[in-house]
Amino acid sequence: MPRRPTLEFWYEFASTYSYLSAMRIEALAEAADVELRWRPFLLGPIFAAQGWTNSPFNLYPAKGRNMWRDLDREAARFGLPPVTRPNPFPQNSLSAVRVATYGADQDWLVPFSKAVFETSFAKGSSIAEPAAVGRILDSLGLDGTQILKAAASEANKSRLKVAGEEARSRGIYGAPSFLTGDGELFWGNDRLEQALAWAAGDRPDGLR
Amino acid sequence: MPRRPTLEFWYEFASTYSYLSAMRIEALAEAADVELRWRPFLLGPIFAAQGWTNSPFNLYPAKGRNMWRDLDREAARFGLPPVTRPNPFPQNSLSAVRVATYGADQDWLVPFSKAVFETSFAKGSSIAEPAAVGRILDSLGLDGTQILKAAASEANKSRLKVAGEEARSRGIYGAPSFLTGDGELFWGNDRLEQALAWAAGDRPDGLR
Repeated sequence: MPRRPTLEFWYEFASTYSYLSAMRIEALAEAADVELRWRPFLLGPIFAAQGWTNSPFNLYPAKGRNMWRDLDREAARFGLPPVTRPNPFPQNSLSAVRVATYGADQDWLVPFSKAVFETSFAKGSSIAEPAAVGRILDSLGLDGTQILKAAASEANKSRLKVAGEEARSRGIYGAPSFLTGDGELFWGNDRLEQALAWAAGDRPDGLR
Repeated sequence: MPRRPTLEFWYEFASTYSYLSAMRIEALAEAADVELRWRPFLLGPIFAAQGWTNSPFNLYPAKGRNMWRDLDREAARFGLPPVTRPNPFPQNSLSAVRVATYGADQDWLVPFSKAVFETSFAKGSSIAEPAAVGRILDSLGLDGTQILKAAASEANKSRLKVAGEEARSRGIYGAPSFLTGDGELFWGNDRLEQALAWAAGDRPDGLR
């Protein structure tokens, strides 16, 4: 039996368009018969390597203003609740990304990740403090205290660092990003459908 | 009789995604029953005000690599010929933008603009020198020499400068951009369909 094609979904909890992808990728992947691999990572070090010490949406105010308006429009188009703007933006996602990295092979990775995004962009609550992340874990019936402690271990920190190096070495420069089994990179929520189609073998004529 | 809704299409000849929009906007606008207003402008001064002295696709190499690949994919998806990469990229678009500005109210604006984009991104020829722009005008049965001269007048240079100031004052920070009659701003070829729908009165629930 042939293996189902796979798509890697690289996401960052501070990223507005990662939120849109996280909320809609499961249904789309199921329809395309593509298996997902959720890959949390930190955008901060990648932005820092590009010389950015803040979100480009803050560094370039006109771009930021339009992004928030676009996010409102896109959320409405996808049937998501009205967007709340995390304050401050971007949220410090270190604690949540550490937990997601620790949970990479756990069946709670996806519900946890979606709950973090919803807390930030639909409920307007902070995800920055470990306590906030712990409450999200608790709300999923998990042991927040234990998981936060494990996520703060040196071994897990290393794992997160390695994921960041992998992202950079595979050409990722923003989030969300999608990588197919044959290494095709798609950037941005706007490319989610095309990434899934590519993973499923549906490619534009003349392109390999 | 009610006026047809209008959409302004702000484009820059050096911009890869402006090319994609230019080649497909007419058919989409006709289907949406929206009137187009083609608005050429220079991105350079807007980028310079953001601190960029080059294209972000050159300043950020990983982003640039993926942009060219994405452009190949998108061109194939839209049924356009394989993309050629102008050398150097970005092309100096000053002469071509001056001519388009001069031609704002002429019936040759759209065919000229599309011919410039095709010369750059489908034929792989330069659009940077006035002589190259003149040849494009000549090929359309126009008087290239006369138009280039008129386009270089102080009055026309002022007009181009005013257009750039208008772009900035209306929130434009990149190209292509789309502005509806009620001032809704959409950025990027990926938003062309939504911009037309908005112009035609089709808006997501809960948004005005």
